[in-house]
Amino acid sequence: MTAASNPERQAVRDGAQQWLEVLRDWVRIPSVSADPGHRADVARSAGYLAEQLSAVGFPQVRVLDSGPALPAVLAHWPSGEPDAVRVVVYGHHDVQPADGEDRWSHPPFEATLVDGVLHGRGASDDKGNIAMHLLGVRAHLQATGRSAPAVDLTLLVEGEEESGSPHFAELLARHRDELPADVVVVSDTGIFGPDTPSVCVGMRGLVACEVHLHGPDVDLHSGTFGGAVANPVTELVRMLAGLHDADRRIAVPGFYDDVVEPTPQERADTDALPFDEAEWITGPAGSRAAVGEAGWSTLERVGARPTAEINGIWGGYTGPGTKTIIPTDAYAKLTFRLVGGQRPDHIRECVQRHLQSLAGPGVTLDISWESEGVAPLKVDTTHPATAATRRALGAAFDTGTVLLTREGGSGPEAEIAGRLQAPVVFLGVMTDEDRIHAPDERAPVELLLKGCEAVAHLWRELAALGRAGLTAGGAAVAG
Amino acid sequence: MTAASNPERQAVRDGAQQWLEVLRDWVRIPSVSADPGHRADVARSAGYLAEQLSAVGFPQVRVLDSGPALPAVLAHWPSGEPDAVRVVVYGHHDVQPADGEDRWSHPPFEATLVDGVLHGRGASDDKGNIAMHLLGVRAHLQATGRSAPAVDLTLLVEGEEESGSPHFAELLARHRDELPADVVVVSDTGIFGPDTPSVCVGMRGLVACEVHLHGPDVDLHSGTFGGAVANPVTELVRMLAGLHDADRRIAVPGFYDDVVEPTPQERADTDALPFDEAEWITGPAGSRAAVGEAGWSTLERVGARPTAEINGIWGGYTGPGTKTIIPTDAYAKLTFRLVGGQRPDHIRECVQRHLQSLAGPGVTLDISWESEGVAPLKVDTTHPATAATRRALGAAFDTGTVLLTREGGSGPEAEIAGRLQAPVVFLGVMTDEDRIHAPDERAPVELLLKGCEAVAHLWRELAALGRAGLTAGGAAVAG
Repeated sequence: MTAASNPERQAVRDGAQQWLEVLRDWVRIPSVSADPGHRADVARSAGYLAEQLSAVGFPQVRVLDSGPALPAVLAHWPSGEPDAVRVVVYGHHDVQPADGEDRWSHPPFEATLVDGVLHGRGASDDKGNIAMHLLGVRAHLQATGRSAPAVDLTLLVEGEEESGSPHFAELLARHRDELPADVVVVSDTGIFGPDTPSVCVGMRGLVACEVHLHGPDVDLHSGTFGGAVANPVTELVRMLAGLHDADRRIAVPGFYDDVVEPTPQERADTDALPFDEAEWITGPAGSRAAVGEAGWSTLERVGARPTAEINGIWGGYTGPGTKTIIPTDAYAKLTFRLVGGQRPDHIRECVQRHLQSLAGPGVTLDISWESEGVAPLKVDTTHPATAATRRALGAAFDTGTVLLTREGGSGPEAEIAGRLQAPVVFLGVMTDEDRIHAPDERAPVELLLKGCEAVAHLWRELAALGRAGLTAGGAAVAG
Repeated sequence: MTAASNPERQAVRDGAQQWLEVLRDWVRIPSVSADPGHRADVARSAGYLAEQLSAVGFPQVRVLDSGPALPAVLAHWPSGEPDAVRVVVYGHHDVQPADGEDRWSHPPFEATLVDGVLHGRGASDDKGNIAMHLLGVRAHLQATGRSAPAVDLTLLVEGEEESGSPHFAELLARHRDELPADVVVVSDTGIFGPDTPSVCVGMRGLVACEVHLHGPDVDLHSGTFGGAVANPVTELVRMLAGLHDADRRIAVPGFYDDVVEPTPQERADTDALPFDEAEWITGPAGSRAAVGEAGWSTLERVGARPTAEINGIWGGYTGPGTKTIIPTDAYAKLTFRLVGGQRPDHIRECVQRHLQSLAGPGVTLDISWESEGVAPLKVDTTHPATAATRRALGAAFDTGTVLLTREGGSGPEAEIAGRLQAPVVFLGVMTDEDRIHAPDERAPVELLLKGCEAVAHLWRELAALGRAGLTAGGAAVAG
């Protein structure tokens, strides 16, 4: 498709400048869901998104803020066509914490724009990706000359994704009737690279817990007591060292029970991706060596294999100098990424049993699980909706080659697919260079604009398929 | 000895009330040497001690505050007798940090007095023990009717002991000529129990370091990168788990090379101590089980065996909720207690080599050692000064039985013994109930007063021995 025959692109260009200022104002709201001190900001973020959805024309917009959940936004724009394809778009407006502020080149909540790159927490994950739908639907209308979208459009944008979506299942259940779906479009993932569009066909699941070991009731002098009393930090490191074996395979009994191993074809497809491992390690990963489970490639390790990560650890004296104590307590935050087949409840049980079996005498173990976890998702790569998404991305990136990838991250996509009984496709333009979850999160504006354009193309593609064409294929499956 | 024939006791009683107020004012000064923010308080503490030494009659008192060391106090009171025994008293006026303030029943620097117990950081370690010399020398003078002590008395009270005495060797070298010693009296240790006086015949040495593992240059999204990049916290717990083997013996090659194992007689003496392990574990240790190196008793584990302790650990996200990152850095503070025969420099080398051998790919290891470490000390139990100390304590506690113990803690005693070429004896009255280094540090006033009395008895006993009597025995040995 040439630029001349691509009215969606022209429409995106027309609206880009005004749209960018809307996104920047949104990024300026520090909607950190993990921190109770930012509850009001999460609410403000939801209100702002609702306003902007109304402004672009959504006739029905609501902030869902009852119950214990942080506010979500639900918007609906009926097509008006009989039997229009019903689309539910999912994403989130909460963001990761921005601690380590001294390591940000630009303040995380000022939405600084430098050389066409927007800097700030949420610029990419996930405000940038959700904002694509504001301009995307406008471009779709302008390009098609319609006053309402060619598909029946519903947006559900939650406020707790970065906290593990603890109330999302409840939210879906409560609003089930307002979420009619022939296809779910998830806009919270990425593409292989800025010049290499791809669609995601798998997401990892997640369970998260905090481990607490209580030792002596007071900090003890390590001279007077050292050697004869259990040190909870020493015990904790011994237990956590037992999460992996020497091959960096997870050593929790039962952990791999239900893993669906990739087929030889899937492994070959992954190998075919234009992946420069050395560049990835020193570039986006900012590391020095590829390190992971023996027998698997780097791309497989981040997509097709489950993980156990220690996200934080603390205990005892951490101030200046030396304090010769046996501390009272030691803590760690753990997350486990799951792949197709694995069930969060089974993994929780396995980890709980394993850690309990490793706890020695003289300490008390307490494991608290963060919500019920997130199931992994595998997409049927042959579904017509997947093909439509590849065509939409191809049009926006001027290429006929849109690859298939697996996403290492986790979201409530399996929950959505299961609840709404609809196939899932992924449309997002994050890349590894965007430093999501890290200091210096960013998003190149040109890439976001290609995403806006892809959204407009996708509504056209899905409308062209129609409901009948959509149901001809398979379905995304959770689990 | 009965109370009637114990004029030292009467003298201590006479001065007790005024003396206690002096000690309380001293405890109110937060002389935390580990924290640069308390430098001025350490200086204030030295000045206060100098004033009080002058007030009790020391004719020569100086605050040593040149160079990088925190201020120490040097005081001298010549006997005036020809060939008087020359005594150097050692202790420290700096204190441990008092963090965890919410776990203190009484504020750490208010010197609260409740039911005859003085509460506060330093009440026992070591201001309480050093203050005994203020009233002790007064009681000695009053009991003997002298205007100057019967021994040539020098006090050296440093300000960096709780930080590993980094400049103490230099201090001793610089003031060597002002520290003439036939015997060194260390007042920084304890007795077996409030009703069980004992003298210490061994102290453990110490080396301390901070371990830093640097991983990726930014915190990474554990979904996007997890499984393929080295997580410094995961690497650190694996390395630190390698400090001990399954028998909780230290697994650092070479660590036990020079350990002088206790003789069968020493093991039998230790077994003979009236030690209620169950009471000790649930009481002063505030723990639930005796845990330590296989094959050794609890008392041996804290006195005769070396240890490796993790005093603190930190890295990654430690705030509320979950943050799914691979952190950039992980840190731990380690201390190693050494016993007779072990050399700090050799232990540093062994630990450094062992940790380096355990560091995996993808992380950078940096180990910073806190000063050169502290050598362990073994006392010759047959020395006349040791016998004199046992008699002095026996007189103060009205008992003929003063046991021999080993102290698990560390101080620069080996350094003093080596530099001053004099035997060391220990006179202090801390007990495990005093919670030194922990929240709720305390000292029972009655016990401190018995310590004051023991000081007065000891000056009489040492003067009676005379220089000739002192040199008849062996010497305390460092190493």
